[in-house]
Amino acid sequence: MPLRAVGILSPGDMGHTVGRVLGEHGLRVIACIQGRSERTRLLAESANITAVPTYRQLVVEAGLILSILVPAQAMAAAENVAEALGETKTELVYADCNAIAPQTVRRIDKIITAAGGNFVDASIIGPPPKNDGSTRFYASGGNLDIFQQLSCFGLDIRPLGTQVGLASAIKMCYASLTKGLTALCTELLTAAEILGVSDALAAEFKLSQSALYERMERGLPTMPPKSRRWIGEMNEISATFEYVGLTPKILAGAAEMYRLVGDTHMADLSPEELEAFPALGEMISNLAEHLKKQDM
Amino acid sequence: MPLRAVGILSPGDMGHTVGRVLGEHGLRVIACIQGRSERTRLLAESANITAVPTYRQLVVEAGLILSILVPAQAMAAAENVAEALGETKTELVYADCNAIAPQTVRRIDKIITAAGGNFVDASIIGPPPKNDGSTRFYASGGNLDIFQQLSCFGLDIRPLGTQVGLASAIKMCYASLTKGLTALCTELLTAAEILGVSDALAAEFKLSQSALYERMERGLPTMPPKSRRWIGEMNEISATFEYVGLTPKILAGAAEMYRLVGDTHMADLSPEELEAFPALGEMISNLAEHLKKQDM
Repeated sequence: MPLRAVGILSPGDMGHTVGRVLGEHGLRVIACIQGRSERTRLLAESANITAVPTYRQLVVEAGLILSILVPAQAMAAAENVAEALGETKTELVYADCNAIAPQTVRRIDKIITAAGGNFVDASIIGPPPKNDGSTRFYASGGNLDIFQQLSCFGLDIRPLGTQVGLASAIKMCYASLTKGLTALCTELLTAAEILGVSDALAAEFKLSQSALYERMERGLPTMPPKSRRWIGEMNEISATFEYVGLTPKILAGAAEMYRLVGDTHMADLSPEELEAFPALGEMISNLAEHLKKQDM
Repeated sequence: MPLRAVGILSPGDMGHTVGRVLGEHGLRVIACIQGRSERTRLLAESANITAVPTYRQLVVEAGLILSILVPAQAMAAAENVAEALGETKTELVYADCNAIAPQTVRRIDKIITAAGGNFVDASIIGPPPKNDGSTRFYASGGNLDIFQQLSCFGLDIRPLGTQVGLASAIKMCYASLTKGLTALCTELLTAAEILGVSDALAAEFKLSQSALYERMERGLPTMPPKSRRWIGEMNEISATFEYVGLTPKILAGAAEMYRLVGDTHMADLSPEELEAFPALGEMISNLAEHLKKQDM
């Protein structure tokens, strides 16, 4: 069955870029932006995504829905879609692409399947797919045929098997490295700043950990605007690790670091304000100042 | 005042190599190995370190004592030396080179100073100094003259200032990166193994995080024999971060990971059994098996 249209929930930073790529490759892309921010409405418009007024219309018109949200919204979005599915008795594939724990995604699978939908566990590794080869869409589940058609419309689709949870699992493990390391680096540089050894530590890193230090200089300053939405993702990874018998603490600590960064004015920058990002030293001294104020 | 002899507490993996370097550069090196393992006695012998029977003789003969131990032993060693110092009323510089929190090192400073000794906060960054340029000895404190003489005997000494705590601080921040990252990588690879996505994750890492993945392949398999002694170091870093108002959880989680690895037979390998280290995949599947057994 050919794919008639794809619905995006919701066209934020990642979602609208995915929608634009699909649209540029000839697929009709729609979104229900009811209750979303003005910025999301503008992003959808800029990506030529057609707005539909209700979830009901979304499930009727779209053969496939991609849920691309912050983790905390994944369950509510699935419930909204399930309700609309129950009312319309339509045929639909629902792909949850969010950074959530395998055990959470299995609950969402049940919600969608009980409402008569077909469920795909999906996850996105890489930045919003503005450039070829930057981003992989992993997928697992009982029937991936419809979802795999997205590879004809500009996305790199990588099936992982029939078991719901595999696509989420690879995302959890991958993001624990990239975002866990960023949290750790943010913490240790802030500690060094407060303890008065910033310059000596930077010199030592340049000498003996130059690759990791370059990663910090490149990666840390662009993190604050993303810090608030990473809190939920760190908690999902923490829950994933605890579920398999490993310590939840490393990633719970990473969540706390992103909460701290999210409390500063640096988190108010939007990705459109890229040129305003501070240098690493400035970012860390902002954080150290913020911490000292909290102590008073 | 020229340095007459250096005492090493204790000539384990790091300590005996430091002693050998100093000895090879013409300095007399002594150690009190009372209560240490047979392996430590043999290491001292192999490094031409002269054994003395008591702490009392150690403080009388050595102008400088280097405390190089696991963190949990640092306080007791200082108390033993302080007791001997009080009895002998001798002139001595005591350098604590251990991976301990700045607030802990300030307590050790008080113990040594109260007994009439001169205290140096020191820390070692890098492997045992078998090769030129591999290892830095940071130092801070009120009077670093005697300690800095070690730079004439083959060690790379880097003074950080007059404040006790600075040398420990740089060590805490540095080790949080190297050993924190190793703990995080060990955890996420073990989770991926249990969740059935090991191969896909390795392929994704090779594609988009090749430098970090090479670091895992190179670094993780040699970690298990060191895991038990890293538990205390992770706890010291955790306490350091908490002391400055940051989350203790990331490093507390790292301590839990090293406790888990330390519970496996892989931790029984000695550094002399290097050639027996498993490949990364084997190490991780050992850990996953160990976890599954615990769950039963």
